[in-house]
Amino acid sequence: MEHTPNKNFEDLKKISKTATTLDAISALLEWDQETYMPKDSIHYRSEQVELIASLSHKAKISKEFSQALEKLIDIESGEIKDTTLNSKEKAAAREWRRDYLKSSKLPTEFVEEFARTTSMSMHVWSEAKKHGDFATFSPHLKKIVELNKKKAELLGYEKHPYDALLDLYEPGMTTEIISPLFAELKLALTDMLRKIQSKSKHSRECLKNEFSAHHQLHFSKMILKEMGFHENYSRLDLSEHPFCSSLNPKDIRMTTRVIPGMPLSCIFSVIHEAGHGIYESQLDESMHGTPLCSAMSLGIHESQSRLWETIIGKSYSFWQHFFPILQKESINSFKSVQLDEFFFALNHVEPSLIRVEADEVTYCLHVIIRYEIEKGLIEGSLQVEDLPKIWNRKITETLGITPNSDREGCLQDIHWSMGAFGYFPTYALGNIYAAQIFEVFEKQHPDWKHKVASGNLLFIRQWLEKNLHKYGREFTPEEIIHKITNRGIDVMPYINYLNLKFSKIYNYA
Amino acid sequence: MEHTPNKNFEDLKKISKTATTLDAISALLEWDQETYMPKDSIHYRSEQVELIASLSHKAKISKEFSQALEKLIDIESGEIKDTTLNSKEKAAAREWRRDYLKSSKLPTEFVEEFARTTSMSMHVWSEAKKHGDFATFSPHLKKIVELNKKKAELLGYEKHPYDALLDLYEPGMTTEIISPLFAELKLALTDMLRKIQSKSKHSRECLKNEFSAHHQLHFSKMILKEMGFHENYSRLDLSEHPFCSSLNPKDIRMTTRVIPGMPLSCIFSVIHEAGHGIYESQLDESMHGTPLCSAMSLGIHESQSRLWETIIGKSYSFWQHFFPILQKESINSFKSVQLDEFFFALNHVEPSLIRVEADEVTYCLHVIIRYEIEKGLIEGSLQVEDLPKIWNRKITETLGITPNSDREGCLQDIHWSMGAFGYFPTYALGNIYAAQIFEVFEKQHPDWKHKVASGNLLFIRQWLEKNLHKYGREFTPEEIIHKITNRGIDVMPYINYLNLKFSKIYNYA
Repeated sequence: MEHTPNKNFEDLKKISKTATTLDAISALLEWDQETYMPKDSIHYRSEQVELIASLSHKAKISKEFSQALEKLIDIESGEIKDTTLNSKEKAAAREWRRDYLKSSKLPTEFVEEFARTTSMSMHVWSEAKKHGDFATFSPHLKKIVELNKKKAELLGYEKHPYDALLDLYEPGMTTEIISPLFAELKLALTDMLRKIQSKSKHSRECLKNEFSAHHQLHFSKMILKEMGFHENYSRLDLSEHPFCSSLNPKDIRMTTRVIPGMPLSCIFSVIHEAGHGIYESQLDESMHGTPLCSAMSLGIHESQSRLWETIIGKSYSFWQHFFPILQKESINSFKSVQLDEFFFALNHVEPSLIRVEADEVTYCLHVIIRYEIEKGLIEGSLQVEDLPKIWNRKITETLGITPNSDREGCLQDIHWSMGAFGYFPTYALGNIYAAQIFEVFEKQHPDWKHKVASGNLLFIRQWLEKNLHKYGREFTPEEIIHKITNRGIDVMPYINYLNLKFSKIYNYA
Repeated sequence: MEHTPNKNFEDLKKISKTATTLDAISALLEWDQETYMPKDSIHYRSEQVELIASLSHKAKISKEFSQALEKLIDIESGEIKDTTLNSKEKAAAREWRRDYLKSSKLPTEFVEEFARTTSMSMHVWSEAKKHGDFATFSPHLKKIVELNKKKAELLGYEKHPYDALLDLYEPGMTTEIISPLFAELKLALTDMLRKIQSKSKHSRECLKNEFSAHHQLHFSKMILKEMGFHENYSRLDLSEHPFCSSLNPKDIRMTTRVIPGMPLSCIFSVIHEAGHGIYESQLDESMHGTPLCSAMSLGIHESQSRLWETIIGKSYSFWQHFFPILQKESINSFKSVQLDEFFFALNHVEPSLIRVEADEVTYCLHVIIRYEIEKGLIEGSLQVEDLPKIWNRKITETLGITPNSDREGCLQDIHWSMGAFGYFPTYALGNIYAAQIFEVFEKQHPDWKHKVASGNLLFIRQWLEKNLHKYGREFTPEEIIHKITNRGIDVMPYINYLNLKFSKIYNYA
């Protein structure tokens, strides 16, 4: 039976569209800043970003909005007031309330200052990174840490100030849940790394066959096409740091970068960002303007990008199909390379300095280090000026290698310049979720390798739409993981996945 | 003596910055829509454009704004109230008042509807043009004509509804001034065309030497560089219809297009748009947020683009410097062409169907036809559904040729789809102003040809900054023409310029 549109719900959806539209404009301003904006206009861009952030924030805490929301749900207690709402509408009301409570705790002046500071700081970071010049970035980062501490206080928390920030990106997540989870993971990964290093037999040498940026992008676009993308609703551009920006399900903008001597970096960035892009493009457009047309959490988002980048993109099956195409599209750069050699090289495990280029075994170790540092900065046990020293020490202790420059050390990631504290842990959570979700997918599609090897990727996309993407924020991350896997968050599927894969590749027990 | 900042002025400037910033965002949304936006997201983009237009309009008519303005100037009478204002500040107050009076006559709902309708209609036009399909575009255009009629009534006028629209683009301009001016020009151009056609001796054949889009853009960027542009504050991209969009003096975005078989089309579009871009980049940044950091009028704007495109860009001297470079950069496509032959071909006069590709003699005839049609549509003496018929008849009568498709007829220009009625006449006014301004420049720089032939273009840019660009809207178009030329608007310098140039090329008396 067709559900009659609920008037209170439709009214609120319409009001909410203003903030949704402003947030899309904000995404465009950021995309443009990272891709095509002439750099001398950064001051003007900061003003633009600040204005839109302020207008969006005002819309989210407006009386008009809260009064319309109050008709659906009791804002104070969270109890549903309009009993004619169906389950999706109830979920939307719950999430609207969640957002409203968060937004209303942040004064507009604070939101403006945060937007202005980070827009400028992203620009300073980008220049500082080029020259490995932490000193220039340091005062900006200091201010950003202070703003994040203030944000945590404004938002409130039960046990640890960092929990307030975590909850922004991963609803319900706390240091109390993460710390033991990461400890277990760190132990397993370190153990795996030790075993692999004792067997070290592969190398990445054969991946260094250079081919032009033009051809890297062309090949990347061929992969995007087979992942189901069409240029009518998506784009691929270049930026300093790869990202995926979604203005709405019909305007998905992915970026990548071309690094001399590392052609696969561009390609895997594209597969990664495409994982995000598929998620965004498969949200329920009929719910646009409500929280149900947005992604559940950053951890869930990252589970999608990592699932495509690593579980699929670094599988033997994937390259059974794509390697001959790569050989052709790279103008024979890989002509004398064998598929097996290429596959082993892609999955070569070796401690390295750059997180986004790290292999699957060491990747989460990078993330865990950032988690420890962020937690320290927010609780005040670490100071910004000590960051390069602390960073280098932790990297050396964990991975046995040391950065030569802050460019490949604490300046490598854009996130802190964006003001995004509490964001990094979601990268590890994403890998954990991805393995949990894929374990279920694999049971339902035991022949997936065969299909992927013949170039069929769309059935994966469709399975993800049906089981995850179409829900938007109808469920919380905890709920959806339960719904899909019948279990809570659990690192074992991830550890098992890695052990199964790498024990074969490195022949360890 | 340094002028102490006036507090009332600075207060208003700060308030006004909101609207200025929203208008810059609006420019970005339009630039993006025409360059990189995935096309399926057009509905969302229309919502974004509408929202920003609405917010900008609300800011322009807000109580906060009008109360701050009232401290500087009596809004009712236009009398300056704050006597401590210096002459620039007084001019800004006058222009702020002018904008306020215009904006406050348009209800926000009207502005929203106008923005929503035209954003969608631009998209429909672009598709309709591809297929020469006027029928699809017709209902949209009908709505746009109705909205423009309504706009004229809302804005008010003394004698002719079209005057209200003209005044939006060219302050102070009326049909009463334009009609006789255009009649005089039409007569002179038709006479010139007749003389030239009896002597017809050149052709455009040698311009058809194809070279790649990549090299066309590369050469165009070399010209931009010599015109004084730097990528730190400007860009060049591709779009369906070339345009120049300025977010602020540090973010100037020009576009061009590549037409198979017409490589010079791309290059001259770039020189044209660069003329606009130089103007925008030389506005007074210290006045950002006030009307004095914006261009005086579209006619004055167009005088800058046409000055560069035609008077400089189609001069023999310009190509003495650039032709050898073109020969090289076009990978020898022009190897066997002589400079004289190339120059004659560039200035070949022959009636043609596309305005932006027209030679200097027939160009304004295209514009005058559009003026007649627009005036007719607005006063109601012409109907939208008859447009293709009327268009083709007028083109045939004036130029002796007939479009085969509406694609090269009434669908060729983007303007009507943008809702811009009253805009076209400024293209002819621009040519008239350009000749008047250049006559003065030439007296002060009798050696300009020599300098240009040696690749020096910057002295022209500087002269224009000093005599025109830096003023923004400090003067009205009428005032600045008087200030520069000591005369009012006058077609004779333009007719003289054309006769001098083309009587030499075509050897007529």
